[in-house]
Amino acid sequence: MSEDDDVLIRRDGPFTTITMNRPRRRNALSREFLITLTNTFHEVGATDARGIILAANGPVFSAGHDFADMAGASLNDVRDLLQTCTDLMRTIQSVPQVVVARVHALATAAGCQLVASCDLAVAAESAGFAAPGGKSGWFCHTPLVAISHNIGRKRSAEMALTGEIIDAPTAATWGLINYAVPEEDLDKTTHDLLQRATQGSPRSKALGKQAMYAQLDRPEQDAYTYAIEVMAASSQTPEAQEGMTAFLEKRPPTWPA
Amino acid sequence: MSEDDDVLIRRDGPFTTITMNRPRRRNALSREFLITLTNTFHEVGATDARGIILAANGPVFSAGHDFADMAGASLNDVRDLLQTCTDLMRTIQSVPQVVVARVHALATAAGCQLVASCDLAVAAESAGFAAPGGKSGWFCHTPLVAISHNIGRKRSAEMALTGEIIDAPTAATWGLINYAVPEEDLDKTTHDLLQRATQGSPRSKALGKQAMYAQLDRPEQDAYTYAIEVMAASSQTPEAQEGMTAFLEKRPPTWPA
Amino acid sequence: MSEDDDVLIRRDGPFTTITMNRPRRRNALSREFLITLTNTFHEVGATDARGIILAANGPVFSAGHDFADMAGASLNDVRDLLQTCTDLMRTIQSVPQVVVARVHALATAAGCQLVASCDLAVAAESAGFAAPGGKSGWFCHTPLVAISHNIGRKRSAEMALTGEIIDAPTAATWGLINYAVPEEDLDKTTHDLLQRATQGSPRSKALGKQAMYAQLDRPEQDAYTYAIEVMAASSQTPEAQEGMTAFLEKRPPTWPA
Repeated sequence: MSEDDDVLIRRDGPFTTITMNRPRRRNALSREFLITLTNTFHEVGATDARGIILAANGPVFSAGHDFADMAGASLNDVRDLLQTCTDLMRTIQSVPQVVVARVHALATAAGCQLVASCDLAVAAESAGFAAPGGKSGWFCHTPLVAISHNIGRKRSAEMALTGEIIDAPTAATWGLINYAVPEEDLDKTTHDLLQRATQGSPRSKALGKQAMYAQLDRPEQDAYTYAIEVMAASSQTPEAQEGMTAFLEKRPPTWPA
Repeated sequence: MSEDDDVLIRRDGPFTTITMNRPRRRNALSREFLITLTNTFHEVGATDARGIILAANGPVFSAGHDFADMAGASLNDVRDLLQTCTDLMRTIQSVPQVVVARVHALATAAGCQLVASCDLAVAAESAGFAAPGGKSGWFCHTPLVAISHNIGRKRSAEMALTGEIIDAPTAATWGLINYAVPEEDLDKTTHDLLQRATQGSPRSKALGKQAMYAQLDRPEQDAYTYAIEVMAASSQTPEAQEGMTAFLEKRPPTWPA
Repeated sequence: MSEDDDVLIRRDGPFTTITMNRPRRRNALSREFLITLTNTFHEVGATDARGIILAANGPVFSAGHDFADMAGASLNDVRDLLQTCTDLMRTIQSVPQVVVARVHALATAAGCQLVASCDLAVAAESAGFAAPGGKSGWFCHTPLVAISHNIGRKRSAEMALTGEIIDAPTAATWGLINYAVPEEDLDKTTHDLLQRATQGSPRSKALGKQAMYAQLDRPEQDAYTYAIEVMAASSQTPEAQEGMTAFLEKRPPTWPA
């Protein structure tokens, strides 16, 4: 790990922290940086880490897309960039680990989308969130997809139409993040949440996370049809059997490696 | 009604209380108990009761599935059990009465799903809610369907991934239940809510409840297409005509038997 | 503008206020009034106004449908009326301007649906919201569509089944409106919110608003597919290019007329 790297990867016990490290660029999501982040999530996703923390260095968590990439770009190039960005969001949801965003500062546009796309999120009370495209000449169309899948319609509309910053306590009240905490508690709360979210069998948790996204948007009866199949199939795994047997035998379970 | 019965049914004026009465089994939802509950809802659903209270005896509201049924069961048997469980959830939504959960204690896994599947829910402040599968060897796939149709995505993820208990005031803030009240007010608040929710014509209310579930998950324009048809058709009922006429004549309405 | 008109239209700088002016009829949404309102939104929508305020005169914001229109009406006539009403709701979402409801008093049934259908909403703390059909002989099927797309399921069910009034602070907590403020601040807060929501390029904002409704109900991956196309296409507009270039050149943007 070099301080010159755009992305820092640090394994610390069962958890890996992926830190965006382009502080002078406000962790802007250039095409190259998006690909680096996606590759990093795939790479860490293939390790035996139990959980992933997405953090950032510098005065801004992430300012979203880099307009230097986009001004003057052709429709095809912009489409390709947005697809690359969406691939990162999907990758975060598809890796087997629980991913929690540790948001120490402002997260805007695709940076806010990043937070909305993590499984869980904790922010410093001084952090903020915005979808600012709408107050200039464009509009945060793709960030709004992730935001509006987390919070209510009137609040999504307020964020997207005003483009203004909501503070972290408001984001917690609205459900965009799980917790807003004093800055000095940010690491501890993030770590505790990840600890709590990674109890149990890693394989079952991975399947659980991935199946969660597969059913979240489905109408209730379709979601049940899907969830019944996944839950029945996963009942046959050694992990599920061990979990149930240990419970019935009143002993702690042990998971297959 | 016998104290030996797994399910107690008590009619009290316009309301029927269905009480889960397997306190020593923590009201675990065995296959047999699920079928008994489903049959009970169908049975009470066919009476002229105006509303149904789902309550429980013992130290736990319901602990969800009974692992004794599931450990070692084949995929087909587990699928069948989960389908039987889902049938209970659908039945609660399909009976013509308004169903309110009266939650005096912990509701976990499919027990939490039960609460999420009732039309309305009131809990004692000391009650709690959890989807604990994810912290052992399996995952609460089907309970998460009901939970995630009630509360936001980050909060659903926190419940499903951590498996930990959220207290009743938090559940009320998140929208998983309608009210969290001091234990001594639980009966009164439950009864008052049901009283308020069962005013008006029983037939119109039944149609309203059932149509609500039919349209809730639909995209807005599809939901309108459906709701316009139901509302237009139901305008022709004697109840709707009486309601409008009484309003215009400034007199109290009377409903057909 | 005449005080005798059912709908008052007042242009005030960049914003146009559309005021429902049937105070003695509690701004009931008769067939004729619905058509007048829809035409007014189309008319104002075609002007260069940046934002629209929907307000009302009299003791009630709007009491919803006029039972005088509906009692004794045929199924076809009721269906036609509900379609006319739904057309108004869609029109509010389809005009290029940001529409904010200014709710000074009670909004019930289709009146509550009106508020739910505006992009944003501000209410006086003394205002209230209800879907009262369910406590009489009919049911607020179509208002519930708009309400349940704004707030959680248990709360939607409580409003639709009880038919009772929720106060404005509760409506703000639930996300049915954006702000509940003291009556003396209603105009200022409404104006400030609209000011904030109409910053930036009008054309990009219009496209943003309209695309928002097109993607809101879609499953996340479908929504991305759509949003990527809209965002890529709109990147080619002079407004988007000017917004990005001005940002990179650290100067204020200017929008094409």
